[in-house]
Amino acid sequence: MDKIPVAILGATGAVGQRFVQLLAEHPWFEISAITGSERTAGGRYKDVCRWILDEEAPEIVSEMVVSKTGTSLPGRIVFSALPSRIAQQVEPSMAEAGYIVCSNASAFRQEPDVPLIIPEVNSDHLALLERQRVNRGWSGLLVTSPNCTTTGLVMPLKPLDDAFGVAQVFVTTLQAVSGAGYPGVPYLDIVGNILPNIPGEAEKIQQESRLLLGQMKAGQRISAEIELSVQTNRVPVIDGHTVNMAIKFERPASPEEAARVMADFRASSPVPGLPSAPAESILVRSEMDRPQPRRDRAASDGMAVTVGSIRPCPILDLRMISVVHNTLRGAASGSILNAELLVAEGYV
Amino acid sequence: MDKIPVAILGATGAVGQRFVQLLAEHPWFEISAITGSERTAGGRYKDVCRWILDEEAPEIVSEMVVSKTGTSLPGRIVFSALPSRIAQQVEPSMAEAGYIVCSNASAFRQEPDVPLIIPEVNSDHLALLERQRVNRGWSGLLVTSPNCTTTGLVMPLKPLDDAFGVAQVFVTTLQAVSGAGYPGVPYLDIVGNILPNIPGEAEKIQQESRLLLGQMKAGQRISAEIELSVQTNRVPVIDGHTVNMAIKFERPASPEEAARVMADFRASSPVPGLPSAPAESILVRSEMDRPQPRRDRAASDGMAVTVGSIRPCPILDLRMISVVHNTLRGAASGSILNAELLVAEGYV
Amino acid sequence: MDKIPVAILGATGAVGQRFVQLLAEHPWFEISAITGSERTAGGRYKDVCRWILDEEAPEIVSEMVVSKTGTSLPGRIVFSALPSRIAQQVEPSMAEAGYIVCSNASAFRQEPDVPLIIPEVNSDHLALLERQRVNRGWSGLLVTSPNCTTTGLVMPLKPLDDAFGVAQVFVTTLQAVSGAGYPGVPYLDIVGNILPNIPGEAEKIQQESRLLLGQMKAGQRISAEIELSVQTNRVPVIDGHTVNMAIKFERPASPEEAARVMADFRASSPVPGLPSAPAESILVRSEMDRPQPRRDRAASDGMAVTVGSIRPCPILDLRMISVVHNTLRGAASGSILNAELLVAEGYV
Amino acid sequence: MDKIPVAILGATGAVGQRFVQLLAEHPWFEISAITGSERTAGGRYKDVCRWILDEEAPEIVSEMVVSKTGTSLPGRIVFSALPSRIAQQVEPSMAEAGYIVCSNASAFRQEPDVPLIIPEVNSDHLALLERQRVNRGWSGLLVTSPNCTTTGLVMPLKPLDDAFGVAQVFVTTLQAVSGAGYPGVPYLDIVGNILPNIPGEAEKIQQESRLLLGQMKAGQRISAEIELSVQTNRVPVIDGHTVNMAIKFERPASPEEAARVMADFRASSPVPGLPSAPAESILVRSEMDRPQPRRDRAASDGMAVTVGSIRPCPILDLRMISVVHNTLRGAASGSILNAELLVAEGYV
Repeated sequence: MDKIPVAILGATGAVGQRFVQLLAEHPWFEISAITGSERTAGGRYKDVCRWILDEEAPEIVSEMVVSKTGTSLPGRIVFSALPSRIAQQVEPSMAEAGYIVCSNASAFRQEPDVPLIIPEVNSDHLALLERQRVNRGWSGLLVTSPNCTTTGLVMPLKPLDDAFGVAQVFVTTLQAVSGAGYPGVPYLDIVGNILPNIPGEAEKIQQESRLLLGQMKAGQRISAEIELSVQTNRVPVIDGHTVNMAIKFERPASPEEAARVMADFRASSPVPGLPSAPAESILVRSEMDRPQPRRDRAASDGMAVTVGSIRPCPILDLRMISVVHNTLRGAASGSILNAELLVAEGYV
Repeated sequence: MDKIPVAILGATGAVGQRFVQLLAEHPWFEISAITGSERTAGGRYKDVCRWILDEEAPEIVSEMVVSKTGTSLPGRIVFSALPSRIAQQVEPSMAEAGYIVCSNASAFRQEPDVPLIIPEVNSDHLALLERQRVNRGWSGLLVTSPNCTTTGLVMPLKPLDDAFGVAQVFVTTLQAVSGAGYPGVPYLDIVGNILPNIPGEAEKIQQESRLLLGQMKAGQRISAEIELSVQTNRVPVIDGHTVNMAIKFERPASPEEAARVMADFRASSPVPGLPSAPAESILVRSEMDRPQPRRDRAASDGMAVTVGSIRPCPILDLRMISVVHNTLRGAASGSILNAELLVAEGYV
Repeated sequence: MDKIPVAILGATGAVGQRFVQLLAEHPWFEISAITGSERTAGGRYKDVCRWILDEEAPEIVSEMVVSKTGTSLPGRIVFSALPSRIAQQVEPSMAEAGYIVCSNASAFRQEPDVPLIIPEVNSDHLALLERQRVNRGWSGLLVTSPNCTTTGLVMPLKPLDDAFGVAQVFVTTLQAVSGAGYPGVPYLDIVGNILPNIPGEAEKIQQESRLLLGQMKAGQRISAEIELSVQTNRVPVIDGHTVNMAIKFERPASPEEAARVMADFRASSPVPGLPSAPAESILVRSEMDRPQPRRDRAASDGMAVTVGSIRPCPILDLRMISVVHNTLRGAASGSILNAELLVAEGYV
Repeated sequence: MDKIPVAILGATGAVGQRFVQLLAEHPWFEISAITGSERTAGGRYKDVCRWILDEEAPEIVSEMVVSKTGTSLPGRIVFSALPSRIAQQVEPSMAEAGYIVCSNASAFRQEPDVPLIIPEVNSDHLALLERQRVNRGWSGLLVTSPNCTTTGLVMPLKPLDDAFGVAQVFVTTLQAVSGAGYPGVPYLDIVGNILPNIPGEAEKIQQESRLLLGQMKAGQRISAEIELSVQTNRVPVIDGHTVNMAIKFERPASPEEAARVMADFRASSPVPGLPSAPAESILVRSEMDRPQPRRDRAASDGMAVTVGSIRPCPILDLRMISVVHNTLRGAASGSILNAELLVAEGYV
């Protein structure tokens, strides 16, 4: 089959580079355009992009000329790695112009007619697109993927919520530096140090978690009634967010039952057949010193969330730790999986 | 006045070096002996000790010959930086032989007739020494100081407990590498990484916190009835433990009230006059990005605990973060302050 | 064709784990035995090996039982990741017993009848094996691969020596922590720090470089007459040794000529066809801020040496910098490439 | 005696903060004004300055209002921590207006009538001020301090040059991140990595070293005829530049003689009596693994340069390593020592 042409908005930034890296060899998609700011537009990607990933930039994009974000672009699907402020303007106009917009930006995640999707968790929320079409009158559409930390929290919560009902969650995050983009955090601030309270992060985690675990009723998304108490921290780790959590269930669950429910979790069709979907979305490890961000983030090409240290909590019911690759599953790969889902569901 | 001769047991290890550094210029104490293992005993300190602190070893001990631990030593007070297994044997025999033993080891912290002391928190627990004398028949005595992380947790809890009653505490620790001693954690394991579940640490924090916040009744120490849920983590930080906590009180307390109670906390006499006591034991910071281990650990020569990020908790009552210097207040300096208290209270 | 059975000596150590990782999916070789110390022998690999690499251990070896080093082993080729002291005993007896021993240990690198080989540099030195057979009476044979840093130095020197004659080399190394094995360097020593003078390293670099660049004459290896001045340093980098060098040539060479000679370098047959050989053994980069260990070490699966910062030297002729992956090209992969060469040359 | 009022230009930047920290308790000087950019001028220091040092900002300046750089300022001496581009404009006009300008900027270091001074090395170069007065017609004066790395190189070279004549020096630097100011180097670029070729740095080191070691002849400064070959590198270290060097002398010198000459070096009067002068400007260490930036940078309050690893060089005469605290001796403290020298010599 012919590959679907895709554009990457904000292709020179940290998340944009991940999109470039992942889409250069994608079985379904083919990069047709890459966009940048006023400063970079018009130059060749290899000349204007300060490439920061450890592996080299794919040759296929090196010679491509960067377009200005917002101009008319070749491509059917558009991946947005734009800063939120710019996404606010650009994404609706792209959707209006008929593009399938898969956004990693936070600008529209809270909108009641914009699906916020993790395919294994809530692919049924795509039904909101009908309302979106009616409300907005767009010929294209807009789907968003959640905040990186939220992803590492919600993916293991999903099967637990289905099985036991999640009522309360204490969250303490240890977030990697790449989550702040590039140049991001100065070495002088973070080396040998911990920085508490990443601005705006706790709110995103609370709101998005409730949306993702919410139910569709009569074409509307009803937020889950889960209480979340969140403390965020930046830690000296390159990639890989760690989430320490304690959970109160509505129905009793032992650590062994919780572990089994997560290990047995499988996404419903068509997710398991998507090119970027991992064989198992949640990996449960039993070693006392796991998960670790550096050693677990890359599991299943960075698409699986690794969970461990599952044990009883003296106050709530359960404590456990998850690790998610924040720029793969938690960002670019997550959006690509959303696009694959849209293709499989016939939206493209 | 003449200085009191003191011996340091285990003087070549990581905590032992801190004792050496701090006692070399102490206004009340003077190092009369330093001890080591079979391997180091008999050599000059500067030859047998692999000094790991950033500042140079004090000249006054460089030429001292290391004694074998457990032999008869000059000195009235003995500071123990022994591994727990060795402390188990050595500390009682030293106390029996008449020494005032101030231990940083965990071996006897749980014993009902051994005071576990943070002077600002529970100096009244020294009353257990009477029972110790009767029970054990020692002519000397044994006092212990708590685990480093426990110290960073209990010091801010103390005034909150006095004012509002602490019922439940969620604890997630981010602990520095120096807490594991030397050589301790390999670079290959911890750089750019987080290691969960420091062995034995959560149990110590739970048990010791209840002892420290316990009440003396009829010569006995009654543990505090506080529920603690603890998750420990090792992080790539040299010195300075960070404690993320959420607290449920018995009586309502706003973040502002909690902040005020901690900021106003002053130890009772004679603690404020002791040479190692900080002017304020708890420093409350209002900046959103504080406390940080690298920038707050050294406050008041590493003797103050810094608290910040105080705000309402959606599930319990309050969330906040504390930072403690784990090898100063949380280890060597803590034991030295205990010894100063014993002098001031007439035990020496 | 049937795969050749190979054994890995010292399979639980840092370099041994790299052998396991690389040989688990090798097109020519198949792991038939893994050996360990008294402590680990008899246990399953996954139980007795503290796996330290970021990617998981291959399943194929997880259940294998670790043999005791030195016992009779299934397998034709033997890869040795033994500590030098043990290699001293074990390697000759294995070669005597008929095994093809490809060693990464330093024990026999200096022996006049033991080839020290980098296939692209001096595959003709295999001719020493004839002398080895005569001298030692072994039915097997022993071939060694050089020190990790030496590899990063000699690979770019080779084409320069061929073209212009290398007379003098100033070397300042910045070596990664994994070069010291596991547990290796404590975090407390190396984080935010530089440790000069890695014991024994400068001597190895000097001696091995002269051997590798030496000529075969009448069945003997004549060391190259190159003057080397070497300063080694340990730096806080996980993998990837950086070599800063300044070179004096016998015949004049501009930076451009030197760059061209290195970029054009191709190994002679049969090396380019070996499974582990990179398409280009030396990658020349022109960006001012390259090479960097974290971003260049993995080039061509860690088999290419990356060179850059090539410019005139005000005192000698040329300055430049190389980066080599110390545990791949500089250790396990280097030995495997040697074994592939032995197969291609008919020694197996 | 009354303290001399001093102003700090660029007081909110990384070096400016060091000036603030050091001058807050200086025995001779007292901060009378602090200046900043358009953005910060008019605000209180504690409100507009993002303080990045580990110790807290001194209270004495917290409430001070930041002035705009270039306005008329109270104060007799002016310390300049300005970016070079701004220093280019501001410093001459300050000197013209009668201020004693002690600059840490690079803008005027190469001018033939502007002394570039390390008091222990070339205090006699202050004689250039006479020419400066004649040439420029300033009622004040301008004195500069060298680049941080140059300082760590030249201080140990000075006594060697005096004793044996330095003809050639190979230099490979390992420079700390704080040398790039704040925010400076992103964590994502430098952690676990080495970045070669700090822009402009090698040239500064070459030119300034020749000036500093130059001789005054007939009121003119004659550059030293030393050949320098310099390779710079940025390394993941917070503070403390390491300089690896190899030296060729005009007259033979053994490592022992070189060590003795450096250890015996004492500055000439009036330098030893200045408040910021260390008792010994060069500390020679004999341990094989010293100097180390983290453990040696703070020697003598960061004012001594530590030298070690002194041994024969197979190509030139000697190899050795020095460590200098780049933001203290190599920046703010160096300028303050210059100002003290000016006071002692009667220029103020």
